[in-house]
Amino acid sequence: MTVPRFAGVVPPIVTPLTAERTVDAASLERLVEHLLSAGVDGVFALGSSGETVFLSDDQRDRALEVIVKTVGGAVPVLAGCIEPSTQRVIDRTAAAVRLGVEAVVTTAPFYAIVGPHEIERHFRAIAAAVPVPVFAYDIPVCVHTKLSVELLTRLAADGVLAGVKDSSGDDVAFRQLCLAVQDADFSLLTGHEVVVDAMMLAGASGSVPGLANVDPAGYVRLHQACVAGDWETARREQDRLTRLFRIVDAADPATSAGATRGVGAFKTALTMLGIIESNAVSLPLRPLDEQEAVRVRTQLDHAGLL
Amino acid sequence: MTVPRFAGVVPPIVTPLTAERTVDAASLERLVEHLLSAGVDGVFALGSSGETVFLSDDQRDRALEVIVKTVGGAVPVLAGCIEPSTQRVIDRTAAAVRLGVEAVVTTAPFYAIVGPHEIERHFRAIAAAVPVPVFAYDIPVCVHTKLSVELLTRLAADGVLAGVKDSSGDDVAFRQLCLAVQDADFSLLTGHEVVVDAMMLAGASGSVPGLANVDPAGYVRLHQACVAGDWETARREQDRLTRLFRIVDAADPATSAGATRGVGAFKTALTMLGIIESNAVSLPLRPLDEQEAVRVRTQLDHAGLL
Amino acid sequence: MTVPRFAGVVPPIVTPLTAERTVDAASLERLVEHLLSAGVDGVFALGSSGETVFLSDDQRDRALEVIVKTVGGAVPVLAGCIEPSTQRVIDRTAAAVRLGVEAVVTTAPFYAIVGPHEIERHFRAIAAAVPVPVFAYDIPVCVHTKLSVELLTRLAADGVLAGVKDSSGDDVAFRQLCLAVQDADFSLLTGHEVVVDAMMLAGASGSVPGLANVDPAGYVRLHQACVAGDWETARREQDRLTRLFRIVDAADPATSAGATRGVGAFKTALTMLGIIESNAVSLPLRPLDEQEAVRVRTQLDHAGLL
Amino acid sequence: MTVPRFAGVVPPIVTPLTAERTVDAASLERLVEHLLSAGVDGVFALGSSGETVFLSDDQRDRALEVIVKTVGGAVPVLAGCIEPSTQRVIDRTAAAVRLGVEAVVTTAPFYAIVGPHEIERHFRAIAAAVPVPVFAYDIPVCVHTKLSVELLTRLAADGVLAGVKDSSGDDVAFRQLCLAVQDADFSLLTGHEVVVDAMMLAGASGSVPGLANVDPAGYVRLHQACVAGDWETARREQDRLTRLFRIVDAADPATSAGATRGVGAFKTALTMLGIIESNAVSLPLRPLDEQEAVRVRTQLDHAGLL
Repeated sequence: MTVPRFAGVVPPIVTPLTAERTVDAASLERLVEHLLSAGVDGVFALGSSGETVFLSDDQRDRALEVIVKTVGGAVPVLAGCIEPSTQRVIDRTAAAVRLGVEAVVTTAPFYAIVGPHEIERHFRAIAAAVPVPVFAYDIPVCVHTKLSVELLTRLAADGVLAGVKDSSGDDVAFRQLCLAVQDADFSLLTGHEVVVDAMMLAGASGSVPGLANVDPAGYVRLHQACVAGDWETARREQDRLTRLFRIVDAADPATSAGATRGVGAFKTALTMLGIIESNAVSLPLRPLDEQEAVRVRTQLDHAGLL
Repeated sequence: MTVPRFAGVVPPIVTPLTAERTVDAASLERLVEHLLSAGVDGVFALGSSGETVFLSDDQRDRALEVIVKTVGGAVPVLAGCIEPSTQRVIDRTAAAVRLGVEAVVTTAPFYAIVGPHEIERHFRAIAAAVPVPVFAYDIPVCVHTKLSVELLTRLAADGVLAGVKDSSGDDVAFRQLCLAVQDADFSLLTGHEVVVDAMMLAGASGSVPGLANVDPAGYVRLHQACVAGDWETARREQDRLTRLFRIVDAADPATSAGATRGVGAFKTALTMLGIIESNAVSLPLRPLDEQEAVRVRTQLDHAGLL
Repeated sequence: MTVPRFAGVVPPIVTPLTAERTVDAASLERLVEHLLSAGVDGVFALGSSGETVFLSDDQRDRALEVIVKTVGGAVPVLAGCIEPSTQRVIDRTAAAVRLGVEAVVTTAPFYAIVGPHEIERHFRAIAAAVPVPVFAYDIPVCVHTKLSVELLTRLAADGVLAGVKDSSGDDVAFRQLCLAVQDADFSLLTGHEVVVDAMMLAGASGSVPGLANVDPAGYVRLHQACVAGDWETARREQDRLTRLFRIVDAADPATSAGATRGVGAFKTALTMLGIIESNAVSLPLRPLDEQEAVRVRTQLDHAGLL
Repeated sequence: MTVPRFAGVVPPIVTPLTAERTVDAASLERLVEHLLSAGVDGVFALGSSGETVFLSDDQRDRALEVIVKTVGGAVPVLAGCIEPSTQRVIDRTAAAVRLGVEAVVTTAPFYAIVGPHEIERHFRAIAAAVPVPVFAYDIPVCVHTKLSVELLTRLAADGVLAGVKDSSGDDVAFRQLCLAVQDADFSLLTGHEVVVDAMMLAGASGSVPGLANVDPAGYVRLHQACVAGDWETARREQDRLTRLFRIVDAADPATSAGATRGVGAFKTALTMLGIIESNAVSLPLRPLDEQEAVRVRTQLDHAGLL
């Protein structure tokens, strides 16, 4: 196995907003620097953690502009181009490529009811239209379709896809995919921040951990231990990070759900670390309140981050 | 029970495309006239049958422009404003209102994982921002959340929503909703074209039948029979239309899924009726092929439409 | 259309239990008489409302014995034979037939993961082994598979099935099935007690309403109005019954789910009507408490049953 | 972390059947010896791979009798007691305990619609009634409920459960559970045979690999490497076994589904290895045919087992 071009820790960067819900460029610059100084291997802009489906095209362009400029070529920038259908994705990739990203990341179609043939046609049409590498974003919890091992293997072999960001929660399929593509130049990035050690053992090339917004240095240490074959160190670091991930339980479950709880907690933690200004999130999400923030602070403290 | 403002047959108009997949304005004008001359009570533009999530904002604006102009105030035009999140919906409603629609129709958030609190905040924020009546589009097969009877009842009572387009496939919940809102000025439009008679008996105000693109006169007769209490006539007309609906089974199931099969069949039928020019559909859907078209023709023939 | 052999109102009778959770034969006899004196057309024993999967084989046999004896041939008795797999179903049907039932009702396999071929083989093997008519019980909310219109149509045409008890919640498929089997001697019984009028208009032969345990006379009047073509009367009766169905919302949703809420409410109502002795239910369900029972009483009162 | 009482490789033994579908005792004895001679740490009888929901109580008792006798106390025998509801499970556990098993394994209720309160009551009632340790079998693909980390943690802390057999496919929840129960005497057995190395790294105590029927020695080597911290060896062994697992793809997907494909392949492989007599499976499953068997043989050959 050779290391594919895109590997290592590639945090899905959150998009800091002002209280008026405009992109907060100064906070975003600080966040990029926070990631780079920890030694990350890439930045994934406008993913689910980046509130991509909540942002207007203008907001998306502004966020990309700030990220690409601040990264300054130090590491690759991958951009989520997440739209329900083929032509809309292609239109977004054009903007992203113009703004200087190294690769684009896109999901299966969503909202419209489609089957395997439509999904394959979707990825092939996008790859044919885009001059940079294309990643598949496998996230059934959002698009309600799992990309099959067979499809991903075929698209890897045909050079349609450069890799996958796996947020499928299906480690069995991920393991089978690792074996199926091991001779291709194909990046296998796990999106599950609490099992990075296990997925690296299984054959992943790297990770896209939302929690790395908060503790990028921890994920860099974890990745380095895995690459070095020091699995006991990796496991200890992972266990610490898995406990830290409990910040996503800070929001009251009676009045909040998935996106509010995840992005809301990451942003709240980043304000406590002095990196971003506000924990504002897009409608219809709500920011964590003060009582919830106390729970985030407790976990940051336990993880040694304060 | 008084008849609410929006009632009767309100077809979700398809968006004819040229072979190059641009909006075919001439075909769209003919289609609007086909509906109006049959006596429909409204037109629902840019719904799921209108390929709304496949179209760019420019295409959407163009389609709306042609529809509003051709309808010419004869009946209300409702516009689907279907985007994954609150602010994006609001941005689309602004365009639709500017182009002259009488009401907007929007779904629960999709892609992002949200819960009941986020969904309620979503509809309230949209209604507060929009100067025209707002309909909820209850379509769990696309957005993967069912709008609860409790939520819809509350939003009806508070004047947030003017009605619902029910494509939930949950006739039990629909019946309970009919009873719960019967004292409000609230439109209950069923989106299920094969059970309009039954849903009218249950208390619906009208229907949004995709199949009415093909046979609007049939749905007008069906609606009139229901309103007149002539349920046997209604049932016979419905049975004929339910059989006609088999055109959605024309596409080979081994190589096509939901959106391809439905919109693809409606468009193919409309070309055979001489109303639209091409059966082209948006990527990643595919148009029905010749062999599949033969099956559509057979059903049109059985229904007495050729 | 001719009326099939099994038609009309066929309540899925609950199984009264003592406080020690043994079958309460005296209560069960009174309940059977309550149904018969209201004029029901059949009794469906050991369905979901009958707590069939909670009962031991001895309890099931005892319940069947009491029901068959008390019915005394006045109307047909259908028996649920609900087991996860083919041979276990066949073993149960043998017991039911020995105890004198006129037909058996069985679901698709559950627990084990099966596909359409296994499901078809299941029903064919059962029908081949059983000397009485076999009904399919289409209840995806319990078995997590929907029986397709194609499969049911084929099994009807081949004489494998005598009918279906439709608890699928899919009125679109039910309507298509009504058309597909209209020339066969096939009973179409809807299990959704709040839309019986609509499903009768759509072509049902009758209903299996859990709520008919509580108000069998209401369902008999509803059925007679439908058969007479008096749909306005049917709708009014249905609306009253749909409101009465709110007794299933009496149990606190924070501490109860489906089976507790439905069977628990039916049994609580029957104790208030003086028909059964105890509202005890099988583990892990819990009986409704006093505060919840007050809500049941309020609805019974509104429906004119007290 | 101390090693809990139940740990290591605990294959979920298949139940060999004769062509007439009776329990084939001679084949079952050979299969037990095949497992024991490979050095397994326990035997899990009557799990999903054991066709438990397909067997009559007599067949189940017969299989348990043969297994317990042949094992002869060499390792613990765990028995699946898989029934839809509480009392039925308790009745089955009584039979299993009488036949000499060391622990019982049971799922959440299935078929009936229940919620978290009913599920917790279910496990507590069973544990209170059973004199041997109780394992939870977390298998949402069969029972359509995931046991939450919170529930399992609470039941572990209260001594209700001795462990979990995790077939949830949710490695994120499994990792969180590993951390949550690490101070309890609680066995964490993964049921996913293709990611045992990764789950052992994550904190599992052992595995229940269906594929270990075919290659128990491979799983014993894999487990020993994990325990020794030799993760590279573990990964290589796992990769070989993951490839071998492709035997479950041997059956034609157009005419077979889950249970047929899995158990059918394991049994076919065992006939080729000369361990069991027939690849017969219970209705409504079907055995693999000759063409499908060829594909199984190819994989056995690649894995070095022929």
